[in-house]
Amino acid sequence: MNLVLLFPEDFPPGQKTVRIEGRRFEHVKEVHRAAAGDDLAIGLAGGGIGTGRVLRIDERSLDLEVSFDGPPPPPLPLTLILALPRPKVLNRVIVSASSLGIKRIFLVNAWRVEPGFWDSPRLDPENLRRQMILGLEQSRDTILPEIQIRRRFRPFVEDELCLAVKGSLGVVAHPPAAEPCPRGVTGPVTLAVGPEGGFLPIEIETLERIGFRAVGLGERILRVETVIPFLAARLF
Amino acid sequence: MNLVLLFPEDFPPGQKTVRIEGRRFEHVKEVHRAAAGDDLAIGLAGGGIGTGRVLRIDERSLDLEVSFDGPPPPPLPLTLILALPRPKVLNRVIVSASSLGIKRIFLVNAWRVEPGFWDSPRLDPENLRRQMILGLEQSRDTILPEIQIRRRFRPFVEDELCLAVKGSLGVVAHPPAAEPCPRGVTGPVTLAVGPEGGFLPIEIETLERIGFRAVGLGERILRVETVIPFLAARLF
Repeated sequence: MNLVLLFPEDFPPGQKTVRIEGRRFEHVKEVHRAAAGDDLAIGLAGGGIGTGRVLRIDERSLDLEVSFDGPPPPPLPLTLILALPRPKVLNRVIVSASSLGIKRIFLVNAWRVEPGFWDSPRLDPENLRRQMILGLEQSRDTILPEIQIRRRFRPFVEDELCLAVKGSLGVVAHPPAAEPCPRGVTGPVTLAVGPEGGFLPIEIETLERIGFRAVGLGERILRVETVIPFLAARLF
Repeated sequence: MNLVLLFPEDFPPGQKTVRIEGRRFEHVKEVHRAAAGDDLAIGLAGGGIGTGRVLRIDERSLDLEVSFDGPPPPPLPLTLILALPRPKVLNRVIVSASSLGIKRIFLVNAWRVEPGFWDSPRLDPENLRRQMILGLEQSRDTILPEIQIRRRFRPFVEDELCLAVKGSLGVVAHPPAAEPCPRGVTGPVTLAVGPEGGFLPIEIETLERIGFRAVGLGERILRVETVIPFLAARLF
């Protein structure tokens, strides 16, 4: 936790002092070993970043006097279209994407997504929100990504993504593709990443019909949790 | 598993047919749903890649007729100096680094590495080897990385790394550094990645004294499992 993320509900009405309990308190106490007088990096969800001075700390809570003096890091201009990964991997992919500054994620179906993955409790909005917050706390960001779930691939691509991709460079990671991943892109990118085993050729074609370019990464096939940060760095 | 990695001990003396049991067999049967006559991507540890034709498959094993016809993907010219991450993360960092083509990894101590991490059974050579194999199977590679463990940071840097870094660009990921990470590097790189909370300033100085450059990634601080693929893509 490189930043304590605060929410409007943390603020008692009309006060600039915040009381922290629970998970954030435990972390600040156990890991940061904060004491009265210490300054902590803080951020306001959806707002600025700044400093919280520890006014008081005991076994159950701490009070922070907060001030905000700067914007959060710039977002990554990347929309991620992600075939739903196996539940075991989902949490850390969301943490990682959120820490990278990705602000818009569509979790979509694909032929090779195992149907049982859709029953995972990890898809609960509350869980997804927890993972996004962990990512923001990691990278000192305050802007929660938006996650949308789309269980029908083709209608999503043809009716919704075809509009959403406009004005951005659409690329789909496709190991057999000969075209290398573009670098040094300056505008927004919409990046599609398939399931284990990849998108089917017909799914690639559906994406290509709305303007996506299939790009490869050389001979290696990477796991989803590796390929997302890899491509986030390669594209920009 | 995008490649079935074979070892010399899989080959009965003088034969080109290989019998597979255990984990690799289960995966090929359950996930690939292989049947007699199917061709599987294979590789020989330390050697070439090719094709294995399934001659026979039953409930316990399968026989492959193998032929090798090409080299594995080129390695990434990156030596990784990694402060020992928490055990929970170690396995997947090794899988990821191995899948990226990193061939030389030093797991080192640093001030902010919790001493208890060194007691983890995940540091057993057999476990590390298993994770490396998973990475190679993922990215269709055959060359096992070499992992070295160094429990004393400063003697390692001053006596060993100072020689190992010669002829390569030494960079240490250091969030406060103003210098951005170089891009488009064409030669070998030695990359140092610190523990949670980062290297101490004095550790950064020790690395700088032997020629490392401290580079930042902008305002974001990324988890070790995110920053390794990120930097692998950013540097080259």
